Amino acid sequence: MTITFVQVLDFIGTLAFAISGIRLASAKHFDLFGAYIVGLATAIGGGTIRDMMLDNDIFWMRDPFYLICTALALIWVVIFGKYLIRQNSTWFIFDTIGLAMFTVTGIEKTLLCATPYPFWAAIIMGTMTGAAGGVLRDVFINEVPLIFRKEIYALACVIGGIAYFACISFGSSNVFAGIVCGIVVITMRILAVRYRLSLPVLKGEEDYKEKEK
Amino acid sequence: MTITFVQVLDFIGTLAFAISGIRLASAKHFDLFGAYIVGLATAIGGGTIRDMMLDNDIFWMRDPFYLICTALALIWVVIFGKYLIRQNSTWFIFDTIGLAMFTVTGIEKTLLCATPYPFWAAIIMGTMTGAAGGVLRDVFINEVPLIFRKEIYALACVIGGIAYFACISFGSSNVFAGIVCGIVVITMRILAVRYRLSLPVLKGEEDYKEKEK
Amino acid sequence: MTITFVQVLDFIGTLAFAISGIRLASAKHFDLFGAYIVGLATAIGGGTIRDMMLDNDIFWMRDPFYLICTALALIWVVIFGKYLIRQNSTWFIFDTIGLAMFTVTGIEKTLLCATPYPFWAAIIMGTMTGAAGGVLRDVFINEVPLIFRKEIYALACVIGGIAYFACISFGSSNVFAGIVCGIVVITMRILAVRYRLSLPVLKGEEDYKEKEK
Repeated sequence: MTITFVQVLDFIGTLAFAISGIRLASAKHFDLFGAYIVGLATAIGGGTIRDMMLDNDIFWMRDPFYLICTALALIWVVIFGKYLIRQNSTWFIFDTIGLAMFTVTGIEKTLLCATPYPFWAAIIMGTMTGAAGGVLRDVFINEVPLIFRKEIYALACVIGGIAYFACISFGSSNVFAGIVCGIVVITMRILAVRYRLSLPVLKGEEDYKEKEK
Repeated sequence: MTITFVQVLDFIGTLAFAISGIRLASAKHFDLFGAYIVGLATAIGGGTIRDMMLDNDIFWMRDPFYLICTALALIWVVIFGKYLIRQNSTWFIFDTIGLAMFTVTGIEKTLLCATPYPFWAAIIMGTMTGAAGGVLRDVFINEVPLIFRKEIYALACVIGGIAYFACISFGSSNVFAGIVCGIVVITMRILAVRYRLSLPVLKGEEDYKEKEK
Repeated sequence: MTITFVQVLDFIGTLAFAISGIRLASAKHFDLFGAYIVGLATAIGGGTIRDMMLDNDIFWMRDPFYLICTALALIWVVIFGKYLIRQNSTWFIFDTIGLAMFTVTGIEKTLLCATPYPFWAAIIMGTMTGAAGGVLRDVFINEVPLIFRKEIYALACVIGGIAYFACISFGSSNVFAGIVCGIVVITMRILAVRYRLSLPVLKGEEDYKEKEK
C-alpha cells in the first residue's frame, strides 16, 4: 500500500475539519458521541451533500478512512484540548489545506458525472464540498453559520474554482488546474485572515430607521 | 428566444423568494456572500430537496437562470434596501405568485417521474417546492421557521394541490388544473393575510400548568 | 389484510416519534400545521435521509401509513395534551420500541442495496434511521439537538447494530439478528434512563481558562 500525496492532503484536511467541529461542540458541552457526530458532519457533510446532489454513491460509505480520521481528531481534542488554542495557527493551515483539497475534489467529481454539468455548477459543487460541512456544523450547534458573516471563506473556493476553469480554458491538464485552484484557495484564505479582508456587510432595515432618528 | 408566460412567473417568484431571504440575512448583518447564499437557498431550496427526493437531476444545475435571478435580487436589495418596506405589498404579491408557481411545478415534476407516485405524494412535493426554501432560510438565519407559526402559508399549497387533483379527477387537462391550483394558492394567501387567518396554535404543557395555578 | 407484528411495532414507533415532535412544537407555540410537520419530520426524517443516501425511493412516498400515524399523533396531543406528562413512561417505552424498530429497518434496507455496503455503513444507516429524525426535529424548533447532550440514545443504536453483525458473523439468520439488535437497543435505552447513564461531556476551552484562575 503506497500513500499518495493527495491522500496525505485529504487526511490533513479531514482531521482539521473534524477538529473544528469537535472544538465548537466542546464549547457547547456536547458529550463524546455528539462531538464525534459534529466533527464528522463538519468533515464529510459537504461531500455528502455534493454526492447526494450529483446522484453519486456517498464517498465515505465504502471507505472507513473518514470515520477513523474523525476518531483520531476526537482523541486529539480529548488529550490536547487545553493546548488547542496554542496550536491555532497550525490548525488554521491544516483547515486551509482541507478547504483547497475539498474544493478541487468537488470540482473533479462533478466533471466525472456521466451527464456533463456546466463549469459554474462544478464551481458550486466545489464550494459546497469545501464549505457546506461548516454550515452543517453551525446548524447542529445552533449558531448562525460563521461563513455567512466572517472573513472570506467560501468565496475563496469560488475564486479557486474560477482559476481552475481559467486554466482548463487555456488548455491545461486537470492536474495542473487542480494545483492552481488549490494554491489560489490557500492564498486567498491566508490573505483574508492576515489582512482581515471581508465582504461588505448588508444593512438591515432596522439600521436605516436608526439612521433617520 | 421567446419568453413564455410561465418563465415570467418563474422569474417573478424566484426574485421575490430570493429577496425575502436576502432581507432577513441583512437584518442579521450577513455579508454579501452570505446574503446571496441565503437568498439562493430560499429561492431554490424547496425545488432542490424535491429533486433529491424524486431522484431527478437538480433543476438549477444546468440552467444559470436561478443564480442570475438571485444576483439581481441581491443588487436590488443593495440599491433599494431603504425603500423595501414601502414596496412590501408588491413583494407580497410577487412572493405569492412564486408560491403558486412553485407548487404547480412541484406537482407536475412528481407526475412526470418514471414510476408514478400517488396524488398525495405529488401534493406534498408541491408544498415542499413552495415552502421548504423558506424553512431552509430560517434554519440558516437561526430562527424558528416562520411558516410553522404565522398565518396560513404552506397550507395554501396543500389546498391548491387538492384543487389540482379535484380538477384532474373531473377530467380536466394538466394545464387547466395547474391554473386552478395557482389561483387557489394565491386566493388563499391573500385571504389569509387580509383577514389574518391562522391555524389554531397548540398549547404547550407549560401552559396547562400555569392555568392550574 | 393481515397485520403483522412488524407493522404493529412500526405503528407504535411512528406514533411515539411523531408525538415527541408534536409535544416539543407545542411548547414553542407552533400552529397545527407546523406541529404536524415537526411530528412528521421526527417520525420519517431519519428514514428519508437514509433513503436519499442509499439512492432508494423514499419509503413513505408510496404508502400513506406514516402520514396517517402522524395525524393520529396530532389528534392525540390535541385531545390529551394535558395528560401527556402522566403518560410519560408509556411514551418512553413506545419511543424506545420505535428506536429499536427503525434501527433494524435501517440496517436491513442497507443490506438490500444492489451494490453491497460494508457492515459499519449499515450500522450508521441504522443509527441514522433511528436518531436523525430527532435531530431534524430539534433543528426545526431551533434547539441544540438533544441526542448530542443527554443520556445515551444514538449510541444504543450503534451497539444494537454491532450486536446485529455479531449474530450474523456467528451464522444466525437476519430475522434472529434483527430481534437481538432490537432487544439490545431497548435494554441499553432502559438502562441508560434508569441509571442516568451518559457519556462524558467534553470540556470547552473556556472551562480550561476558568480552572486556571
